[in-house]
Amino acid sequence: MDLATVVGVVLGVVLVFLAILVGGDMMSYINAPSVLIVVGGATAATMTSQPLTRLFKFHKVCAKTILHKSKEPGEIIRQLVELAEVARRDGILALEGMIAEMDDDFLVRGVQMAVDGTDPEIIQSVMETELENLLERHESGKGLLDAMGRYAPAFGMIGTLVGLVAMLSNMDDPSKIGAGMAAALLTTLYGALLANVVFLPLADKLGMRSTEEALAKTIIIHGVMSIQSGDNPRTVESKLITFLPPQLRPAQDQVAG
Amino acid sequence: MDLATVVGVVLGVVLVFLAILVGGDMMSYINAPSVLIVVGGATAATMTSQPLTRLFKFHKVCAKTILHKSKEPGEIIRQLVELAEVARRDGILALEGMIAEMDDDFLVRGVQMAVDGTDPEIIQSVMETELENLLERHESGKGLLDAMGRYAPAFGMIGTLVGLVAMLSNMDDPSKIGAGMAAALLTTLYGALLANVVFLPLADKLGMRSTEEALAKTIIIHGVMSIQSGDNPRTVESKLITFLPPQLRPAQDQVAG
Amino acid sequence: MDLATVVGVVLGVVLVFLAILVGGDMMSYINAPSVLIVVGGATAATMTSQPLTRLFKFHKVCAKTILHKSKEPGEIIRQLVELAEVARRDGILALEGMIAEMDDDFLVRGVQMAVDGTDPEIIQSVMETELENLLERHESGKGLLDAMGRYAPAFGMIGTLVGLVAMLSNMDDPSKIGAGMAAALLTTLYGALLANVVFLPLADKLGMRSTEEALAKTIIIHGVMSIQSGDNPRTVESKLITFLPPQLRPAQDQVAG
Amino acid sequence: MDLATVVGVVLGVVLVFLAILVGGDMMSYINAPSVLIVVGGATAATMTSQPLTRLFKFHKVCAKTILHKSKEPGEIIRQLVELAEVARRDGILALEGMIAEMDDDFLVRGVQMAVDGTDPEIIQSVMETELENLLERHESGKGLLDAMGRYAPAFGMIGTLVGLVAMLSNMDDPSKIGAGMAAALLTTLYGALLANVVFLPLADKLGMRSTEEALAKTIIIHGVMSIQSGDNPRTVESKLITFLPPQLRPAQDQVAG
Amino acid sequence: MDLATVVGVVLGVVLVFLAILVGGDMMSYINAPSVLIVVGGATAATMTSQPLTRLFKFHKVCAKTILHKSKEPGEIIRQLVELAEVARRDGILALEGMIAEMDDDFLVRGVQMAVDGTDPEIIQSVMETELENLLERHESGKGLLDAMGRYAPAFGMIGTLVGLVAMLSNMDDPSKIGAGMAAALLTTLYGALLANVVFLPLADKLGMRSTEEALAKTIIIHGVMSIQSGDNPRTVESKLITFLPPQLRPAQDQVAG
Repeated sequence: MDLATVVGVVLGVVLVFLAILVGGDMMSYINAPSVLIVVGGATAATMTSQPLTRLFKFHKVCAKTILHKSKEPGEIIRQLVELAEVARRDGILALEGMIAEMDDDFLVRGVQMAVDGTDPEIIQSVMETELENLLERHESGKGLLDAMGRYAPAFGMIGTLVGLVAMLSNMDDPSKIGAGMAAALLTTLYGALLANVVFLPLADKLGMRSTEEALAKTIIIHGVMSIQSGDNPRTVESKLITFLPPQLRPAQDQVAG
Repeated sequence: MDLATVVGVVLGVVLVFLAILVGGDMMSYINAPSVLIVVGGATAATMTSQPLTRLFKFHKVCAKTILHKSKEPGEIIRQLVELAEVARRDGILALEGMIAEMDDDFLVRGVQMAVDGTDPEIIQSVMETELENLLERHESGKGLLDAMGRYAPAFGMIGTLVGLVAMLSNMDDPSKIGAGMAAALLTTLYGALLANVVFLPLADKLGMRSTEEALAKTIIIHGVMSIQSGDNPRTVESKLITFLPPQLRPAQDQVAG
Repeated sequence: MDLATVVGVVLGVVLVFLAILVGGDMMSYINAPSVLIVVGGATAATMTSQPLTRLFKFHKVCAKTILHKSKEPGEIIRQLVELAEVARRDGILALEGMIAEMDDDFLVRGVQMAVDGTDPEIIQSVMETELENLLERHESGKGLLDAMGRYAPAFGMIGTLVGLVAMLSNMDDPSKIGAGMAAALLTTLYGALLANVVFLPLADKLGMRSTEEALAKTIIIHGVMSIQSGDNPRTVESKLITFLPPQLRPAQDQVAG
Repeated sequence: MDLATVVGVVLGVVLVFLAILVGGDMMSYINAPSVLIVVGGATAATMTSQPLTRLFKFHKVCAKTILHKSKEPGEIIRQLVELAEVARRDGILALEGMIAEMDDDFLVRGVQMAVDGTDPEIIQSVMETELENLLERHESGKGLLDAMGRYAPAFGMIGTLVGLVAMLSNMDDPSKIGAGMAAALLTTLYGALLANVVFLPLADKLGMRSTEEALAKTIIIHGVMSIQSGDNPRTVESKLITFLPPQLRPAQDQVAG
Repeated sequence: MDLATVVGVVLGVVLVFLAILVGGDMMSYINAPSVLIVVGGATAATMTSQPLTRLFKFHKVCAKTILHKSKEPGEIIRQLVELAEVARRDGILALEGMIAEMDDDFLVRGVQMAVDGTDPEIIQSVMETELENLLERHESGKGLLDAMGRYAPAFGMIGTLVGLVAMLSNMDDPSKIGAGMAAALLTTLYGALLANVVFLPLADKLGMRSTEEALAKTIIIHGVMSIQSGDNPRTVESKLITFLPPQLRPAQDQVAG
């Protein structure tokens, strides 16, 4: 579970509550119609802007920012080097027996193709197409959160304009001007909170996840191609550790000829 | 029909009406000259910025966001695999008889070229050129909605400035200041509503449609090239399902050698 | 002549005049020093930001948005297919006699090279270089209008700040505050009008023109290369119509082998 | 000398002075601490954001926007055609004697390599690497001005916020509110002036210069490669004039076979 | 140590302090809850938006902007030319003895592969992959600072909205309005300061460092490939000095054949 996501959102909400309690009365900050116009409006605009099928995946997209756990690149490299050792020792067909233990469908697919003796160019093209399509699906999930993050402040401003017009058209009682403006500003506040505490950070996080997964998948592609071409396990390792930051590389980092 | 588009726009409009009714009097929010300056100004600027021929397609562009129905990628793949089976069994010329049943002009064109024995490189280049031009046409439709979405808030601000100058030049009667400012803000409200309830979400939706269609056409290109090269139907399928998200792939997902 | 450009600008100006007349007194909106700071300032900043030679082309750039008439892609394709027919029937040298009737210098240049027996790779590279340089020149014309569209609102804001400081430093007579603020806001209004009624839409239009011309030139390049290689006129047509939207294609759209 | 740069900046400054004189008293607009916070703050942020070595080149970068004179593309082409004629007539070694008269180091370097009989691929790769690095250096000079143009308005806003807080915390004497706000707004005005009269237009100009130089260098690369390969001077010219806009091309524009 | 970074930040802070002291009372500018909402909120949003592992590197990322010292490109070229001389004189194996003196791991890795007789294509691909991954890691460090620089002003605005609502809901005592607005504006001020004095300039600096290191690594890649292919030291130098600005090149700049 991605603790940072949960802690970040909770911390953001708590801080805003504290700020409100320090400054005044919680009741001044709660207004159901204001919530409705901001949340409802942003949802309506997002609904207009996205295919319906994607909207139904909204909870999955959110869940992904919290639950998803990427594998460490170092771990993936260790696994690929191990496969390379088996392939070198017992032949590439020996990898078939190890597929059951693999926990990454993408790796399974690549190894299966290598074991089946599929043409290397086809293996590479199939895996790269799959990676591209994966990234495009991630992008579309991120697009959903980005849309909410863009439309929430926009409807916050719309709500404030509606409130200002109401207040300004009806200024008979000057003592109510303050309360009217306060109410009008609430929607802008709600829009800014939703965007900056929830939607935009979650969209950023999805983008990060996508970059991480792309790195993991790219390592797997390079690894499978290297194993398939019968490379020495040391060569496989030396090719793959270039993807790691220097401090994470094994100390005995040596390039075999 | 794309229900989400209609529901999104209607929901956005209803929510804003509700917000207005909660806050005050509907009549304060209706002002014909304000509508004129925002809608007319945005239309004028868009007219200046776009070729006339494109403006006449405005209703078509809008209709497309509501009516257009993309075919499911999974469905397209099933159809291509079926074609591959026929081509494998009865020869590629047998596909000619199936053209009448195809509902996608792009697929018809590709299969026709394959049946005619056109050079594979030419088939690919013709289909890719067609896809690029399709995307460019989509882009220009989206550009129309984007322009409206940019110029509507700009003319909203222009209207507000005109109103503020009128009010400020004529402050003899302080009791009218509120009403004057309320009227001035109306154009900003109209501009924000048009942009965020209608134009920008519709432009986003067109962009999504374009991505979906590009995926569908890319699958067709890969499928036709694979059929044309005489690939085994299993190979055709295994190449194409990489375009699907894992959960939509058939359970018996196997890569044939 | 591009009527949309003229109508759009005129319509925008008329609408703003109407809005002013509805709201108040035309005289409150006219102020010579405000015009000077916005128009002069934007011109000064654009002068600083652009090479002098380009500034002298400003009227030509503006004229281009109004006068320029692109040829229809369908018309260009018909002409190229006709050339292909002549080349097929009477040999490529027969095209020399038709050069006099061609109204597009780019086409003349391409056909001339083909007639001269220039190496196909050189023809393609010369024509593509010419297209790239054409697009770069368009881009720089658009840059001029974009700069005006960016600096006009900036100097509008500068003028408003100058006016506000003047008003605020001198608030002895409260009855003049309104007039002072009205005057200060005028420059912001001028900047917004210039940018959104004139400069930004014209810049957009130039961008559109550039895309249209790039399409026309790309069709010509493909056509000349296809004619030069001795392609059958039906093949030339089938290659080129992929650049047209489906509804503009001739009904007998068939791909010759 | 680039007169437009100087005239543009001077004109911008003069216009703002005029606007101030029309509106009120020059003294209200001059405030040393406000200058300090905007100029100093923008300099500090730029210092943080850029390598120290680059900051020391600030005056050179500014000078370049004023003093730099690019050679006309037409002139460069004439020179290259002349070299091609000599090379054709007297052999490529004859170019060595002409190096002393060349005023462009980039051209000298290219011709020297051609004379030395360096491998064409190496000549091209060396010249292209040099062009890329030149553009990257230009980009970093532009980055310096862009940073000033971004941070000056930011510190203008910071200064205004500091001033507003000071004024609002101390509203005992209402007659001073106007003067306080006027002073607070001054930094925003300074920031907007610095950015829009000086830094952003100069950054734009550097970008233009860079595009111009890239065009000149690209012409030289094409010219040297063409001369080196022994092309006929007419061919050299016909290849190079594609870089010129049609109206600048010589009337006898003919493509030699 | 990168003095400019430290001096820039300190100078920015000092200038703002001076501006505050000139305008009024330091105490009006200090407010613990305001610091909490801006710093805490920006941290929370950044935590949500970034993987946890990256957050723990925050101090390292900051330290890098201050401590990191890139090697001069000229120095790197001198070192590579020296290696080329040794390789030419004593054979490429002689470079193994010089590895101990090299202070750049990337260079060591490249030379080691050359000495081991690794295939040139593999050397190049391994080094380029390493460079790409280095740049991606830099990008993610920069992303952390960029996120802080984006969310700090956002939470500044949220804090101001919270404060305005509190003040407006409670306007019984008009004498407190000024103090309430002052307090509300403080968070906007804090957000603008954090973003423009610290986070955005540091993010820019990291971007610069990344460009510098990419240049250094690119020179090393070209140098190692050139040495590996047995190039004459003069050729190595003439290839590499194209990466230097003309004024930094040695006077005897000559291209060997």
